[in-house]
Amino acid sequence: MAQYDLPLDELERYSPAVDCPDDLVPFWTATVAEARATADAPVVVRVETGLTEVVVDDVTFAGFGGHPVKAWLVRPARHDPAAHAPLPAVVEMLGYGGGRGLPHEHLRWAAAGVAHLVMDTRGQGGHWGAGGETPDPVGRSAGVAGFMTAGIDDPHDHYYRRFYTDGVRAVDAVRQIPGIDPARVAVTGVSQGGGGSVAVASLLAMAGDDVAAAMPDVPFLSHFRRAVRLVDSRPYGEITQYLSVRRGPAAEATVWRTLSYLDGANLARHATAPALFSVALMDVTCPPSTVYAAYNAWGAAAAAPPRKRIDVYPYNDHEGGQAYRFAPQLAWLRAS
Amino acid sequence: MAQYDLPLDELERYSPAVDCPDDLVPFWTATVAEARATADAPVVVRVETGLTEVVVDDVTFAGFGGHPVKAWLVRPARHDPAAHAPLPAVVEMLGYGGGRGLPHEHLRWAAAGVAHLVMDTRGQGGHWGAGGETPDPVGRSAGVAGFMTAGIDDPHDHYYRRFYTDGVRAVDAVRQIPGIDPARVAVTGVSQGGGGSVAVASLLAMAGDDVAAAMPDVPFLSHFRRAVRLVDSRPYGEITQYLSVRRGPAAEATVWRTLSYLDGANLARHATAPALFSVALMDVTCPPSTVYAAYNAWGAAAAAPPRKRIDVYPYNDHEGGQAYRFAPQLAWLRAS
Amino acid sequence: MAQYDLPLDELERYSPAVDCPDDLVPFWTATVAEARATADAPVVVRVETGLTEVVVDDVTFAGFGGHPVKAWLVRPARHDPAAHAPLPAVVEMLGYGGGRGLPHEHLRWAAAGVAHLVMDTRGQGGHWGAGGETPDPVGRSAGVAGFMTAGIDDPHDHYYRRFYTDGVRAVDAVRQIPGIDPARVAVTGVSQGGGGSVAVASLLAMAGDDVAAAMPDVPFLSHFRRAVRLVDSRPYGEITQYLSVRRGPAAEATVWRTLSYLDGANLARHATAPALFSVALMDVTCPPSTVYAAYNAWGAAAAAPPRKRIDVYPYNDHEGGQAYRFAPQLAWLRAS
Amino acid sequence: MAQYDLPLDELERYSPAVDCPDDLVPFWTATVAEARATADAPVVVRVETGLTEVVVDDVTFAGFGGHPVKAWLVRPARHDPAAHAPLPAVVEMLGYGGGRGLPHEHLRWAAAGVAHLVMDTRGQGGHWGAGGETPDPVGRSAGVAGFMTAGIDDPHDHYYRRFYTDGVRAVDAVRQIPGIDPARVAVTGVSQGGGGSVAVASLLAMAGDDVAAAMPDVPFLSHFRRAVRLVDSRPYGEITQYLSVRRGPAAEATVWRTLSYLDGANLARHATAPALFSVALMDVTCPPSTVYAAYNAWGAAAAAPPRKRIDVYPYNDHEGGQAYRFAPQLAWLRAS
Amino acid sequence: MAQYDLPLDELERYSPAVDCPDDLVPFWTATVAEARATADAPVVVRVETGLTEVVVDDVTFAGFGGHPVKAWLVRPARHDPAAHAPLPAVVEMLGYGGGRGLPHEHLRWAAAGVAHLVMDTRGQGGHWGAGGETPDPVGRSAGVAGFMTAGIDDPHDHYYRRFYTDGVRAVDAVRQIPGIDPARVAVTGVSQGGGGSVAVASLLAMAGDDVAAAMPDVPFLSHFRRAVRLVDSRPYGEITQYLSVRRGPAAEATVWRTLSYLDGANLARHATAPALFSVALMDVTCPPSTVYAAYNAWGAAAAAPPRKRIDVYPYNDHEGGQAYRFAPQLAWLRAS
Amino acid sequence: MAQYDLPLDELERYSPAVDCPDDLVPFWTATVAEARATADAPVVVRVETGLTEVVVDDVTFAGFGGHPVKAWLVRPARHDPAAHAPLPAVVEMLGYGGGRGLPHEHLRWAAAGVAHLVMDTRGQGGHWGAGGETPDPVGRSAGVAGFMTAGIDDPHDHYYRRFYTDGVRAVDAVRQIPGIDPARVAVTGVSQGGGGSVAVASLLAMAGDDVAAAMPDVPFLSHFRRAVRLVDSRPYGEITQYLSVRRGPAAEATVWRTLSYLDGANLARHATAPALFSVALMDVTCPPSTVYAAYNAWGAAAAAPPRKRIDVYPYNDHEGGQAYRFAPQLAWLRAS
Repeated sequence: MAQYDLPLDELERYSPAVDCPDDLVPFWTATVAEARATADAPVVVRVETGLTEVVVDDVTFAGFGGHPVKAWLVRPARHDPAAHAPLPAVVEMLGYGGGRGLPHEHLRWAAAGVAHLVMDTRGQGGHWGAGGETPDPVGRSAGVAGFMTAGIDDPHDHYYRRFYTDGVRAVDAVRQIPGIDPARVAVTGVSQGGGGSVAVASLLAMAGDDVAAAMPDVPFLSHFRRAVRLVDSRPYGEITQYLSVRRGPAAEATVWRTLSYLDGANLARHATAPALFSVALMDVTCPPSTVYAAYNAWGAAAAAPPRKRIDVYPYNDHEGGQAYRFAPQLAWLRAS
Repeated sequence: MAQYDLPLDELERYSPAVDCPDDLVPFWTATVAEARATADAPVVVRVETGLTEVVVDDVTFAGFGGHPVKAWLVRPARHDPAAHAPLPAVVEMLGYGGGRGLPHEHLRWAAAGVAHLVMDTRGQGGHWGAGGETPDPVGRSAGVAGFMTAGIDDPHDHYYRRFYTDGVRAVDAVRQIPGIDPARVAVTGVSQGGGGSVAVASLLAMAGDDVAAAMPDVPFLSHFRRAVRLVDSRPYGEITQYLSVRRGPAAEATVWRTLSYLDGANLARHATAPALFSVALMDVTCPPSTVYAAYNAWGAAAAAPPRKRIDVYPYNDHEGGQAYRFAPQLAWLRAS
Repeated sequence: MAQYDLPLDELERYSPAVDCPDDLVPFWTATVAEARATADAPVVVRVETGLTEVVVDDVTFAGFGGHPVKAWLVRPARHDPAAHAPLPAVVEMLGYGGGRGLPHEHLRWAAAGVAHLVMDTRGQGGHWGAGGETPDPVGRSAGVAGFMTAGIDDPHDHYYRRFYTDGVRAVDAVRQIPGIDPARVAVTGVSQGGGGSVAVASLLAMAGDDVAAAMPDVPFLSHFRRAVRLVDSRPYGEITQYLSVRRGPAAEATVWRTLSYLDGANLARHATAPALFSVALMDVTCPPSTVYAAYNAWGAAAAAPPRKRIDVYPYNDHEGGQAYRFAPQLAWLRAS
Repeated sequence: MAQYDLPLDELERYSPAVDCPDDLVPFWTATVAEARATADAPVVVRVETGLTEVVVDDVTFAGFGGHPVKAWLVRPARHDPAAHAPLPAVVEMLGYGGGRGLPHEHLRWAAAGVAHLVMDTRGQGGHWGAGGETPDPVGRSAGVAGFMTAGIDDPHDHYYRRFYTDGVRAVDAVRQIPGIDPARVAVTGVSQGGGGSVAVASLLAMAGDDVAAAMPDVPFLSHFRRAVRLVDSRPYGEITQYLSVRRGPAAEATVWRTLSYLDGANLARHATAPALFSVALMDVTCPPSTVYAAYNAWGAAAAAPPRKRIDVYPYNDHEGGQAYRFAPQLAWLRAS
Repeated sequence: MAQYDLPLDELERYSPAVDCPDDLVPFWTATVAEARATADAPVVVRVETGLTEVVVDDVTFAGFGGHPVKAWLVRPARHDPAAHAPLPAVVEMLGYGGGRGLPHEHLRWAAAGVAHLVMDTRGQGGHWGAGGETPDPVGRSAGVAGFMTAGIDDPHDHYYRRFYTDGVRAVDAVRQIPGIDPARVAVTGVSQGGGGSVAVASLLAMAGDDVAAAMPDVPFLSHFRRAVRLVDSRPYGEITQYLSVRRGPAAEATVWRTLSYLDGANLARHATAPALFSVALMDVTCPPSTVYAAYNAWGAAAAAPPRKRIDVYPYNDHEGGQAYRFAPQLAWLRAS
Repeated sequence: MAQYDLPLDELERYSPAVDCPDDLVPFWTATVAEARATADAPVVVRVETGLTEVVVDDVTFAGFGGHPVKAWLVRPARHDPAAHAPLPAVVEMLGYGGGRGLPHEHLRWAAAGVAHLVMDTRGQGGHWGAGGETPDPVGRSAGVAGFMTAGIDDPHDHYYRRFYTDGVRAVDAVRQIPGIDPARVAVTGVSQGGGGSVAVASLLAMAGDDVAAAMPDVPFLSHFRRAVRLVDSRPYGEITQYLSVRRGPAAEATVWRTLSYLDGANLARHATAPALFSVALMDVTCPPSTVYAAYNAWGAAAAAPPRKRIDVYPYNDHEGGQAYRFAPQLAWLRAS
């Protein structure tokens, strides 16, 4: 079935009860504090790309555990950090399996006068595109090849704890770079990068260092229990495969407990930044109801409800809005 | 089989005898002359994109039959046509089913200081990406939905006669735009756009208006007879499907005759521009041997053999080199 | 899921509100009138087939725009038009991608003493079977290869306006051929031909030239909006693909407006002929609910409700009743 | 959809009305009586396997029609039938398409001190694993290759009447073998073997020769009408395919009448043995609701409701619990 | 690869050494003699079809083992057996899984003035189309569902021994029906029916009762050993599946020995009738080289080489020439 | 194509030149020595399984880096280590993605009077079956999810260096357990376990601690370069995917260099134990030629060529001989 999930009007009011650990906030504030404790200043090295209208820096910052994480920083060549007003910035996290690729793949924000930090994804980068270069020095539990069940036995060990923390540290890093306005840093990303954006904005809100905007597209990593009941596609299907082997209520309880710390539908409640989401109604990778679970939760725990909007693509699968996202995001960023 | 075509050393010397019509050159010089006769100057309208480092024009030029064809022209904002030296330019033709999309999808050449004309594809644009806007006002013969057999009964009526001519006219158009250096216009494209680049460079060589460089990636539209024997994927498979219905030697002769006028392996012999090709050895859409058929023929009929090179991606399917193509192409362009 | 659509009892009373343009009837009466204005008498040429019990004519009639459309007319050899009573006739429209093929593929009606006109489908005929020969001289808008989105921007330009009109003109043509009883002409067809039958019977009812019977099997081209929400198969999926690229409410509104003029669920309301439908409950190409949308609407706007029946195949996919349709259709025809 | 059937709480109380023939019990008691009338004692031949801790017998017993059916009997080598207490036994029926294979594939019950009779499946054994050796000497009606529609015109002729009866006779056989305790014989099996277990336990209850326990896993052969509406996978899909060809209400009535005699949801009502079922909620071969139809019916016609339990695997497809089934089954067997 | 088998020039001279049993001819002459010994005259019952230009008889004849086999006999209504010269006839055998269907599906030969006997296929008829009605009263060995390995242990027991013999008996039957010219009976069929035609013509040549012509299209059942090495599609793949389970040289030797009696490449050597074959070069069900193995062997053992021709469809899969076959077959028949 | 690799006679003499590092032997002897240096004695804990004829121990030994690796040790209950002669033992490594599962899945060797150590696979165990419990505490380079490219940049870091070393340490461990005869330990496994067996036997031969026999079935991890050219299936396809992203000669050279240290075709030259291989000619996961590359190299560097044999399964895909392997392996073990 093409539009296989709930009808749009039900999606718009879909607010499921997702199991949430009592110590969600302390878990994450401790995680962020610990990561920041190990941190050095980012290393920023100018690279030669042949491009004349933008300049590109190879940025290495200390992510989770102090592990080095790579990023590209792309900025307008016309901008002189010493002379001009600092630039707003967008931190982008990437989709499952990909890496930061090559600098000229990331020109749209700089072409609009916005600094753009593209964060590499640890341990990924070999599935598509032009690759990544950031290893993940942490080992893995017995499980399914892939990242969804790596460290599934304990939220402290889970791969996505590291990924989210890397994202927080990417924002920290760009805020320290001369010529960037630390008050105008937004987060964005598609799919895994969208889920990462939800998480990073939420964690920074918890930490009192909110971003200026969050712009997640077709976000992954939300409402896991519904996702695995609804679709058997990857990467959510890695959970299914794991539970199909590690059978029984005890293993299941462990899995759901660990994932509850990582669930965008739990984290988003703590967000406070203005948020522009997008969702695709034929998305069989990130089911629409799981996206709405995060969107409808966004800012629910905030003192004042943040401004938010979700753009709906009724006829798209997981590719969602693609290039059509840039214009509304640019407008959103300028208004934030 | 992953590398299913000939081994690399055989590919490198693969020069098949492809049936070539005696009147190939007059057919095309007449076609080009006829198209130019109907032509008005391109209409160039500046568009608002929110981008600050590049400027974008919506270009409409008269293609085959004088039909209006759309294009984006993307240039560095820093470049003042009135004051600065004219820019080199790259004309890009697009892959099967796609359209020119949105301007911010086409920033890499402008970011390197090169004007970039992205030609819409007539009648296509609905299959992927952000779409196209150029209709094809010519009707179609009875056949397979798709473009490979549209007008198959006569080379004069075939869809790709119009597509190639549109490409020639795109080069003509960009050469007329103030601020562009008409002597430094290159053509490029991937797949259908690669086949188009082969053809356009060849037709312009026939017409004595050679381009500065051709940079086709994993080009389609070459050595049709081998392609259909080797793969059953689309779009070459449209020919197979057509011949599976329109059975018999007479229909087959008609098909091969028409396609011989459009075959990159025939046209490339007449090319004279320096050419940088790429090929992927696991490409099941455009088999490597059909790419080499065009590459090895490149410039064979020229007085002096042009400079040429082919970059090989042994482990890629039709995606080929993707982002890895930009650096060598930029270097090639600067050296041409 | 095998029977994935509504349960049968809900299907039987399924009467969705399909957006219907106010000017539906004038749109079509003008279209038919305009086509008839350009019309010459059909050209009928006897062909040699080796068959002894039937005679076959190659018929060329003026369809939409006066464009020549081919058809086979197959009749019993025993029938002498000069001496015998005129024959009843069946006009058949064909499934997506096919053409009129070869005469000996169309013997069942003639073997039952009924004249049989098999109308070729313009621009199609290359996908399966023995092919077609009728070009479509009208160009196409930018879109998806295929016929569902050709001319989608305006109902006047849409491919299926031409296809329906060709069908009306096929009935007009057969009524002019000596030996055929103009009062006993029925329309039939499977899938696209079924949708065509629904439309042609409806348009002729609007024009006051009703057919004697309509016998659509698993008809396509009805209740488009539900179809694309329910299935992603072709050809309805061409609409989905188009809207997945041409994103946004404006494009969507244009699409649904154009298709509302072509929607069998709107047209069928105006039908007045006795109708024998069939539907398959596991049909993933033409969902059962879309078939019932046309069937339940059949004759709703008529002064007196026409006789109608729908035969249900609970365990069939889009092949439906196949050869089992002939006996009930022959009985229906004889009773009409 | 991954968990595509009813939610678990609805499954737990799912008790559909399945058409049940009035003469179900006499049909089966006569069938069993007739088979027993032709029966000789099983032929038991010790085979050399290289195994030292178990002994293996090649058993041939008279199944339906007195036809010879093969089985392996695997027992602990330490057990001396002459000196020790007789052993409990498990009779296992096999999944669709398989055969008894090789003796060392069947060690788990013997390793736990339980005699294990693995019954070959007549006419099957060529689809997977190590094969079978038992022909089915009865011919077949016109139909679908496979066993689901073989003899579909009459319950007396249907393949599964023979299969069920073979299973009853396998229990009869093992009860006659020295060293086996006839009062402690259980039946088990996966999929087709699970459906067979349901049937054999039910038929033996009808015959007053109840088994000690039934342990069906993901049983097939239950609630056929719902199965074909819900899934199109094999083997239930053989029914669909048959009805897609043999169209019409008469053929359909014949099919459902024949299958009603074989339906686990009808037979299970007559069961009286303690039963341990398992079900997988993502099972697209044997839909969960059809498994629950048998489970919820289990013992419904019994004077006293038998002890029963069903273990649920929420994340498994048709593989279900696999190796995880052995521990609970061993415990169940020891408690029965 | 689309044309995956040998190149056409190698196919044309492909004459593999296929293991042939010494007693091939006596095996078959005894088989035919035995079948004829049990035979009664065919039962011919006129059926009402609603057709006026043809008459249809429901024919039941005694096939292998004297088992009743159904057929349709379709003849021109204009033909009066009592008054007119007897008709030539075509006996058609059918493709794998199908049955004789409905009479109006078989009109082309009668429409050309030729009597047409369509033989039902025992035990098949449930896979596609409108079905069959002939059971196969013989049981089956343990094996793969399907007909390719039914009775594989002994050539006397194999399903295709019965199928071929039914075909011989169908020719015998039609020759006994008043109004048919026994000297002008041809055999034809597609795929399994093509393989049957090869066999029946060969067996009747052995028996000294040759047919007037054989017209097999894309014949199955030839050069089994190469087929299973080359393709894994069904039905040849049933052999592969069987041997993948029944592993080892002994089982393999049994399989190849049994099939050598049934191999069209062995049988065709004994044919003497003029033969019109067809082959499709992209056929992945019946590989071209296996078709040529039968074609190139045709008549090799004959005193005088029979007239033969093979029509090649280079771009077709197993559908081959379809409707395009009728005209050349009609011409061949009239010339034979 | 079903048998898509070289013909059997070419396979039998297939000895490709595989790039081999000069320091292969020192690399591995150092690796083994280093692992042994960190080692403690294995921890052996008796577990309760409900089985009466075998006893099961949960073994934890120090693998690569001293990391704890789990295994099951299954032995006949009748064997009294204190009183009886020590048992021969088989160490089994497992297929890709699986884990040691549950003890009762591993009964065949113990049932034959042989101790059986089933080694868990670090970091795997979530893909199929009943799972594993051994984490891999080493992190991973940026790459493809899965194990084939984890640590691909350096042979010291590669996942399979750890896996092979774990296997060596498993043999070391079992040799230390009371009741096991250290001189009669064999290694075996299927696919990844087969590749592991090749490696472990080779490394132990290098170390002067040879095993009594190696019995690899359809071994993986051999002749990588040919494998990726020939098939695109997983897990070899992980290399292809990695190289399709990490494009260019430098990355490729790194990959092939790292893998050359792990290549079974290089390691097997150093083996000295008697070896019983098996291969399947339709295996599209581990192509036959890559299996023969290891088999034909087996013992090539040995002073005296070891006894070896390869059993061929012509009609099997990667499942190979399955249960048919046990009898020849048991015979081989008893003869070794």
